[in-house]
Amino acid sequence: MITLYDLSLQNDRRPSPFCWRTKFALAHKGLKWTEVPVGFTEKDKIAFVASNTVPVLKDGETGVKDSWAIAIHLDKAHPDKPLFKSEMALSYARFANGFVDTVVQPALFPIVVGDLYERVRLADQPYFQESRGKRLGTTDFAAFQAKAREKGVAAFRGVLEPARRVLKEQPFLAGTHPAYPDYALAGAFMWARIISPLVLLDGDDVVHAWRERMLDLYDGLARKALAA
Amino acid sequence: MITLYDLSLQNDRRPSPFCWRTKFALAHKGLKWTEVPVGFTEKDKIAFVASNTVPVLKDGETGVKDSWAIAIHLDKAHPDKPLFKSEMALSYARFANGFVDTVVQPALFPIVVGDLYERVRLADQPYFQESRGKRLGTTDFAAFQAKAREKGVAAFRGVLEPARRVLKEQPFLAGTHPAYPDYALAGAFMWARIISPLVLLDGDDVVHAWRERMLDLYDGLARKALAA
Repeated sequence: MITLYDLSLQNDRRPSPFCWRTKFALAHKGLKWTEVPVGFTEKDKIAFVASNTVPVLKDGETGVKDSWAIAIHLDKAHPDKPLFKSEMALSYARFANGFVDTVVQPALFPIVVGDLYERVRLADQPYFQESRGKRLGTTDFAAFQAKAREKGVAAFRGVLEPARRVLKEQPFLAGTHPAYPDYALAGAFMWARIISPLVLLDGDDVVHAWRERMLDLYDGLARKALAA
Repeated sequence: MITLYDLSLQNDRRPSPFCWRTKFALAHKGLKWTEVPVGFTEKDKIAFVASNTVPVLKDGETGVKDSWAIAIHLDKAHPDKPLFKSEMALSYARFANGFVDTVVQPALFPIVVGDLYERVRLADQPYFQESRGKRLGTTDFAAFQAKAREKGVAAFRGVLEPARRVLKEQPFLAGTHPAYPDYALAGAFMWARIISPLVLLDGDDVVHAWRERMLDLYDGLARKALAA
């Protein structure tokens, strides 16, 4: 019995990019799970693993926090259909995680933060205002976002170039089949999709075609999620 | 009998990052090769494969241009000690190449271009002035470089973050042993090392420790190269 604690916004939207890594990982392994929605300020729900952030996984009696630790746990506890078949697979996943965390997500955040704020639960908006306001130096997220989009959409497309080069040659970042590098990047796109109607990609971009494939995976797991 | 056509500057310095990918690839496979130095304007030497750029490889009767095509050729013609043991290894190498080409090299170029110009063969300087001058909008490469370094060194260290995250966990980008992702990034560092005395990394950066390991590989292949 696997339970995923997942960030929840208004209308129970589920945008967390890190939770999406875990959902893709679970689906990759053919595992079933149930979900517990967690608001930004419902930290008590995940206190049992001393975590401040989702995803948190409860797998039988074992609690695991952090999407990467969860992926490692899943391969250990459920060896079938491994996420990491080789040291190379693990290394590539680490690199792709690092790329998404330090390049893709930072390019995305400023151009969707206003849309995100609008969709945060009302009860969580003061928390969001304080924490993200401190980071951005303003709580006028709509104005910040509008200004950021002037150059930010083109910049976001630009930072995807390493992924684009791979996807010109093959259907998935991992090759003919998707694996963790795909899930890491798809997590960022799911975050954007669920919180913002902003058009991020040109229709003729190979990254666009790849994103369509990611939306279709595992019986449309990602496509079924409530989008903005 | 393998011959590598390699970019040559004053004092026969050999900085080409793409040629370094090929040198590491050859050494990885335990192959022997000889080198032909090629100045920026000695395109006639590599005209036999209709190429404008190095590396070019002559392997027996076969000519191959482009570092990636060369790597693929090497695994096909010399299957021992493969560069790409799996589809995942190939995919990761593609991603790392894309990252180095579109993120690392562009962050490096402006902060070393003045030092590079000083080391280009006198006969090649007019060519360099015209081609790179057009790209940068100035031929005062020393002034351009000085200005670029104000923020460029910190920015360069910043873009290495995805590699840094991997190297905090393991000795090489590819795992416990080096492979093509390491050679791609090391090529960029060899380029900088050979053309510029600029200190790029903090001594306590895990990327610094990795670079030392790369310099030591294959009997110090990279460390033996004439540095700036």
